[in-house]
Amino acid sequence: MTELRYAPERLLEFATRLLQQAGLAADRASVVADVLVEADLLGHDTHGLDMLARYLDEIAGGRMAREGEPETLRDSGAALTWDGRRLPGPWLVKRAIATARERLATHPTVSVVIRRSHHIGCLQAYLKPVTDEGLVILLTCSDPSGAGVAPHGGVASRLTPNPFAAGFPTEGEPVLLDVSMSTTTNALTKRLYDEGERLPGPWLVDADGRASDDPGILFREPKGALLPVGGLDLGHKGFALALLVEALTSALAGHGRADPAEGWGASVFVQLIDPGAFAGRDAFVRETTRLAELCRTTPVAAGAPPVRLPGERALARRAAQLEGGVTLRAGIPESLRPWADRFGVGMPAPLA
Amino acid sequence: MTELRYAPERLLEFATRLLQQAGLAADRASVVADVLVEADLLGHDTHGLDMLARYLDEIAGGRMAREGEPETLRDSGAALTWDGRRLPGPWLVKRAIATARERLATHPTVSVVIRRSHHIGCLQAYLKPVTDEGLVILLTCSDPSGAGVAPHGGVASRLTPNPFAAGFPTEGEPVLLDVSMSTTTNALTKRLYDEGERLPGPWLVDADGRASDDPGILFREPKGALLPVGGLDLGHKGFALALLVEALTSALAGHGRADPAEGWGASVFVQLIDPGAFAGRDAFVRETTRLAELCRTTPVAAGAPPVRLPGERALARRAAQLEGGVTLRAGIPESLRPWADRFGVGMPAPLA
Repeated sequence: MTELRYAPERLLEFATRLLQQAGLAADRASVVADVLVEADLLGHDTHGLDMLARYLDEIAGGRMAREGEPETLRDSGAALTWDGRRLPGPWLVKRAIATARERLATHPTVSVVIRRSHHIGCLQAYLKPVTDEGLVILLTCSDPSGAGVAPHGGVASRLTPNPFAAGFPTEGEPVLLDVSMSTTTNALTKRLYDEGERLPGPWLVDADGRASDDPGILFREPKGALLPVGGLDLGHKGFALALLVEALTSALAGHGRADPAEGWGASVFVQLIDPGAFAGRDAFVRETTRLAELCRTTPVAAGAPPVRLPGERALARRAAQLEGGVTLRAGIPESLRPWADRFGVGMPAPLA
Repeated sequence: MTELRYAPERLLEFATRLLQQAGLAADRASVVADVLVEADLLGHDTHGLDMLARYLDEIAGGRMAREGEPETLRDSGAALTWDGRRLPGPWLVKRAIATARERLATHPTVSVVIRRSHHIGCLQAYLKPVTDEGLVILLTCSDPSGAGVAPHGGVASRLTPNPFAAGFPTEGEPVLLDVSMSTTTNALTKRLYDEGERLPGPWLVDADGRASDDPGILFREPKGALLPVGGLDLGHKGFALALLVEALTSALAGHGRADPAEGWGASVFVQLIDPGAFAGRDAFVRETTRLAELCRTTPVAAGAPPVRLPGERALARRAAQLEGGVTLRAGIPESLRPWADRFGVGMPAPLA
């Protein structure tokens, strides 16, 4: 199996058709496909089309809702609370962002929380359209049905990785950050375990409380867990921020670990902030541009590459892949072939 | 020099009198003293009365403003932007929180950003009065005149530690987190350097890009810097969050590293969130209470203490010190004696 490159518009068309055949309305299928392909464009290949077969399986099994609308549990103007009714996460989040965007006309910040969303994909994939309008976005989620990460001081998993993403504009490219509050993910650990490799750092804790780079710690009894970011010495920081994510998502949404688990899904918090309602958009960008410049020009060790800002590499990859085609890791097209056959959708042709 | 214990009300009175004699109005002196003593009560002794001599020196030197009001640069209802005019940080932040609290009556979230505040002390000291009312608070700051922390991949300092604090209620004690986006602080590194000790972990980066626990790296040429949380392998996470803090504070406030440095101070972002405007306060507390229980009951390694939640140890210390007296580290009373003599204020008597 080798890596192949595809025209992004072909992948978008292919994914949209599969999702439509699975039962999503055309507009919803198109939005979900767009968020997945955007993740691939940015280089986050675990959250791009690699997710699509799992999404299709969730739809087929009735665990991702084909149709229906989110229920508005509370509308406070600058704050909205939805029950996502297990509808496709990317579609819900895109709609939440669009709604927040409209309401920014009359509010300086707008927050939307969603309970019972299905999986929302790659958080970084949502940021650029917001920062392109000169706005700030905060986006975070947790999955109350999942675990993997130990609380600081513990040796068993209780929390999800709880990614926190944010985007803000500069005069040049925006800063687009998307970082989990854990050292790593179950998925990466599994991949390295299967490949017989070690983790790049002592990112796991074993049942005796020792840090280790051995991925087998998640798969052999007695099992350990992923450490919060900060590791054994400073993991109280990652743990604290992970709890904040749980509070902003599941607690504000009023549905989470206190409720029966419903399977793979997400509690979501998104907040849009208009710098124009604070000291002004020009002043904001003046500061972020100077900040970016200060970081980029920081001295580095002899022979080391220059400091990169969050999102910088992803945006460069995006630009290159929009031009030269999207690379799909070996195995991804193969994972979709059974669905293409089942739905009578032709596989996309790779670029020469 | 030994550690002595003091009645908290005596320390409050003492600190208030010193600040009044330095030129602050009674109400402002009292608020600043309260925030400092609260930090000592919580056990954060680097940010309690240990700061007072420096504050008094800043006032005496005209670098912390004795009087005047913050200037409202923009009032968008649910968002306020102030120029703090270098007024005492604790007084500005307490006032920002009180203003946000009032406005929560008509807004689901209220944000206040402050440029040109003086130092705001210990962030955790502000949280409990807000969570006691069933509300959520986010509080973060940066100091555009300072540095100490390297961007991920760099070997020189460009950012401040950028603490991020948040508080949210549970049925029991609130969760009160206050974590910097760096591995440690300049102050702790200096103390260990002076004492000839090593850091507890490889928290610094030297000029060659290597991680180290040698505090001398900050004090010998070629100098290194503090690493962002995550260290050499995962420091892109701490770096990303540190940039978000800079954006929420200095960029929203429209004053920061793009402007001439004005000395020790802070750009501040505070946001209050009313869970009652989302899925409801009861639903919020039901979730956070379950979350806290899940964490506290996590298995630990044989012989290890149980998992603690952020703020748990600080709140226990606070309760004990309210009862049995506040311990001041050796050197702190001595640092204040010259000011007490100068202002004719009697030193507080230690408890027997």
